[in-house]
Amino acid sequence: MKLDYIEHIGIAVKSIAESRGYYENVLGLECYAMEEVSDQKVRTAFFMVGQTKLELLEATSEDSPIAKFIEKKGEGIHHIAFAVASTDEALKEVADKGITLIDKSARKGAEKMNIGFLHPKSTGGVLTEFCCK
Amino acid sequence: MKLDYIEHIGIAVKSIAESRGYYENVLGLECYAMEEVSDQKVRTAFFMVGQTKLELLEATSEDSPIAKFIEKKGEGIHHIAFAVASTDEALKEVADKGITLIDKSARKGAEKMNIGFLHPKSTGGVLTEFCCK
Repeated sequence: MKLDYIEHIGIAVKSIAESRGYYENVLGLECYAMEEVSDQKVRTAFFMVGQTKLELLEATSEDSPIAKFIEKKGEGIHHIAFAVASTDEALKEVADKGITLIDKSARKGAEKMNIGFLHPKSTGGVLTEFCCK
Repeated sequence: MKLDYIEHIGIAVKSIAESRGYYENVLGLECYAMEEVSDQKVRTAFFMVGQTKLELLEATSEDSPIAKFIEKKGEGIHHIAFAVASTDEALKEVADKGITLIDKSARKGAEKMNIGFLHPKSTGGVLTEFCCK
């Protein structure tokens, strides 16, 4: 297992329109892309900080995972995504070590990345994603 | 305001002894330092991923902010820390823009960093830290 760097940090927000002002005007970051990922029922906005992206996540429907997260825990940090050489190989490697997966193999996420999630019950409450291009 | 990079991500754990195995044996990271920060009532363990550290945080007393966080939200991601040129100047700049601060000026944190926290009620639920050497 080799984690190259932290590709992004996902942040659950009620409204990108309302939240982006903090990232742009207070933290001085630039929103370089927005994208809707329909199969995850989220709208995203991306900001770069060093080698890592901040990914704001807004629910596009009431049964979105982001809507459920906010209902349970409130707005805030949602997940960490690590860049790996191969998402499929990384998922297999941690599964072989007993980690419970949300995604048994890679699927397409925002920015056409190949992504896969580990279940937070196996990772000390940290929703964890592997991703590669 | 210029955020240089994400210096670290703080992760609240009940026990570093119990949690480190996941970071070391599953994610393949190396714990390069451990430190107790007595005025914050935490014990820390550091792992490097790219330019960012993962900082495991374990409470050293029942009234530690980490113990309270885990009681309320469970184990998981606790805060994001951005590297800035001057923590004091960055705190002043965001306060002038209406952000509520936890620390009005920099104090010493782990690794002798000059740190200061913004209140999550001003930052969309994301406990946010500025830090510099």
